[in-house]
Amino acid sequence: MRAELGDVPVKDDEGTLTTYGHDESDTADYLPQLVAFARDTADVQRVLRACMKHGVPVTPVAARSGKSGGSLPLEGGVSLSLERMNRILEVNPEDLTATVEPGVILEAFQKAVEEKGLFYPPDPNSQAMCTLGGNIAENAGGPRALKYGVTRDYVLGLEWVMPSGEKLDVGRRTIKGVAGYDLTGLLVGSEGTLGIATRITLQLIPRPLRVMTALVIFKDVLQAARAVSAVLAAGVLPRTLELLDDVSIRAIDGRGFNFPRGAGAAVIAEVDGNVEEGLFQELTRMGEVFEQGGALETLMAQDDSQREKLWAARRVVSSSLRAMKKHKISEDICVPRSKIPEAIERFKALGARHGLTVATYGHAGDGNLHANILYEGPHERPKVDLALEEMMRVTVSLGGTITGEHGVGLAKRNFLSFEQRPELISLQRSIKTLFDPKGLLNPGKIFPPEKIS
Amino acid sequence: MRAELGDVPVKDDEGTLTTYGHDESDTADYLPQLVAFARDTADVQRVLRACMKHGVPVTPVAARSGKSGGSLPLEGGVSLSLERMNRILEVNPEDLTATVEPGVILEAFQKAVEEKGLFYPPDPNSQAMCTLGGNIAENAGGPRALKYGVTRDYVLGLEWVMPSGEKLDVGRRTIKGVAGYDLTGLLVGSEGTLGIATRITLQLIPRPLRVMTALVIFKDVLQAARAVSAVLAAGVLPRTLELLDDVSIRAIDGRGFNFPRGAGAAVIAEVDGNVEEGLFQELTRMGEVFEQGGALETLMAQDDSQREKLWAARRVVSSSLRAMKKHKISEDICVPRSKIPEAIERFKALGARHGLTVATYGHAGDGNLHANILYEGPHERPKVDLALEEMMRVTVSLGGTITGEHGVGLAKRNFLSFEQRPELISLQRSIKTLFDPKGLLNPGKIFPPEKIS
Repeated sequence: MRAELGDVPVKDDEGTLTTYGHDESDTADYLPQLVAFARDTADVQRVLRACMKHGVPVTPVAARSGKSGGSLPLEGGVSLSLERMNRILEVNPEDLTATVEPGVILEAFQKAVEEKGLFYPPDPNSQAMCTLGGNIAENAGGPRALKYGVTRDYVLGLEWVMPSGEKLDVGRRTIKGVAGYDLTGLLVGSEGTLGIATRITLQLIPRPLRVMTALVIFKDVLQAARAVSAVLAAGVLPRTLELLDDVSIRAIDGRGFNFPRGAGAAVIAEVDGNVEEGLFQELTRMGEVFEQGGALETLMAQDDSQREKLWAARRVVSSSLRAMKKHKISEDICVPRSKIPEAIERFKALGARHGLTVATYGHAGDGNLHANILYEGPHERPKVDLALEEMMRVTVSLGGTITGEHGVGLAKRNFLSFEQRPELISLQRSIKTLFDPKGLLNPGKIFPPEKIS
Repeated sequence: MRAELGDVPVKDDEGTLTTYGHDESDTADYLPQLVAFARDTADVQRVLRACMKHGVPVTPVAARSGKSGGSLPLEGGVSLSLERMNRILEVNPEDLTATVEPGVILEAFQKAVEEKGLFYPPDPNSQAMCTLGGNIAENAGGPRALKYGVTRDYVLGLEWVMPSGEKLDVGRRTIKGVAGYDLTGLLVGSEGTLGIATRITLQLIPRPLRVMTALVIFKDVLQAARAVSAVLAAGVLPRTLELLDDVSIRAIDGRGFNFPRGAGAAVIAEVDGNVEEGLFQELTRMGEVFEQGGALETLMAQDDSQREKLWAARRVVSSSLRAMKKHKISEDICVPRSKIPEAIERFKALGARHGLTVATYGHAGDGNLHANILYEGPHERPKVDLALEEMMRVTVSLGGTITGEHGVGLAKRNFLSFEQRPELISLQRSIKTLFDPKGLLNPGKIFPPEKIS
């Protein structure tokens, strides 16, 4: 097979294989036998053709920042890295579009478009390391999804390499378009199981000129969660409404940002627009609703550096929680907004019942909560798994979904059937087979392993 | 077969068949042999099962307001009407969601949610008659798409009846969610060829409290189109930027609204938000850019009744143009924003070359233009068809799409290959076959008829 890869750069030293066998999901490690580093679309095609011909599993990978194990080569074979395809090909301020390769780091792209007065809203926490190709594979979200939607809302078109190696141009370069089936919609979020995006056309919007950020302190998390609902019900749609519970606050307090005494929960609320006066009024209105909801204190970021401090604190919640105990499982369930308080309450309770610390934070404005289970070591894993399963069942019973933005991947494939009926899973499997008849592209992901009868 | 339909209400009198053989597309009429009026999901399942069993073509239909012939029963058989499934099942202000049946009229739904302080943005011109099921089949847009996106951006989940009659629950009830493939994305805009939505869960947003509307007059349409681009480039994102050319203005002038002398083109610009001061500043900023772009005059709607007059005038453009000549073909091409002036110029020129009147109006802010060809009768149709084909080729050569919001249906199936390569069309055909192996649901739509070799 190596001969057919031609001059595609490859590595198979132990260090490389170990690196590409691990991601941010806290599932197990799975080592590939070879890592291929595509430099262009032709390389991607070449690797896929060779793998299909020889029946070798192939798993697309880039930053390995995923939380669901989507880029882990579960059955070994080739890990196909898109990291070297990292050029921003065009940013077009007239059309409000951009074209990029999949390996472009999100933060680098955001900076490039903001320099031109444009804005690309999706902002997963991993923005400093994650790639746009990975964002598209997982349909990544982030705090600003509340006002601006998720990755798929910005993807207009894709150059797409099918598992067979065939190249397609899917979608369009225009803002609107309904010619044929919305394959772009189907492919975004397909978790690297239906093919690989090798070129991505994104929609941009004008960059809002003003942003205002407030930190609102509450005594406890249920009060904070109810206040978040009240803000939305009052007709205010900020760009973020991020929630931190008591455990999350303890984890980050003093790490660059000091919370006031008595803070048992906090909300980071941010509004944006072009007119300062307008934003100020929105923030004031929101402040009133929060105060009626029991807020202890509202701190306004007075300048960009204070704003940045606040967000830096928010961004280290995940790593700071990890520092509290040796292990952490990060969930990303999403419930209807009215169920947020109940979800938080029940997650805490089930944690307590199992003797586990549960920290809940995240995008409360859209119901997408990061419920984290902290634990000390493998000896606790059986009860962690029980707690996780209960958490998923509670979520589904509240009308929610098992994954709001991380994807199913490997981590949640056994929970998919809690939410979706066998007929629906079976239809999705047949779409997978249509795209990848040999089942060699990113095998084992999304769907539960089929039982051998 | 009738026996298997049980007590599903049906009609086959000539009047009914004639009615259901016609829509707003100005393509030919195609009569069904029977019209079945589903009252609930079980009726839809029953009709589909009976048709599949007996090999009878079946075409979903509701308001027949479509512009691409999507609801015409091309091969006869059963027209399956969803009009009687017209209940709004829930509007939930806490979750900001609603659940409806497919036959609900869009305008009735908009009113129901606005009464509760909520907002459902999609606003196709036919809102007084079109149904939400039809909007989902075609992924309908409208003027407000510029700021708020199109129908698919608001569809969270669907109860979906497959061509076989099998019922699935697709999607979710939460704002975010990435469990499994985004089938909702695939099904919205599938033009009634992959199954039928029998229950629809929609996302709502808080209703903006203030709306301000301005009519900006220009000497000619190219100047107006360039000014629209300049507004977007200046970082202003209004909720609508609607363009009217000279022919469109002549068609509606004096019909409830009088345009100032010398008006050769006009833009209806509308901003919304919660803070009057903010909107006023946005509108002022936009007014400056328009003035620099050569605007002759800017008229501000002083109250709701003036606003409504302006929009009433915009809504009758289509019917007023039709009144100018006996026939009208309404296109809905979409080009990258920077290409709007060139597209308008080339459409006018190709009209002139064929001796045909071309009127261009529509959603200039997102590049989605309604280029209309007016003609007197069938004797002109051959040159109309030539002009249409040229228009599509020009659009695609400018990086545009043959349909921005009407769908391909019957009207544009022969143009799809101008935009999409055979491999892509072939993949879509195989998805169609996966969903509808017998090819009996809404046959003949979207894809060009296959050549018999």
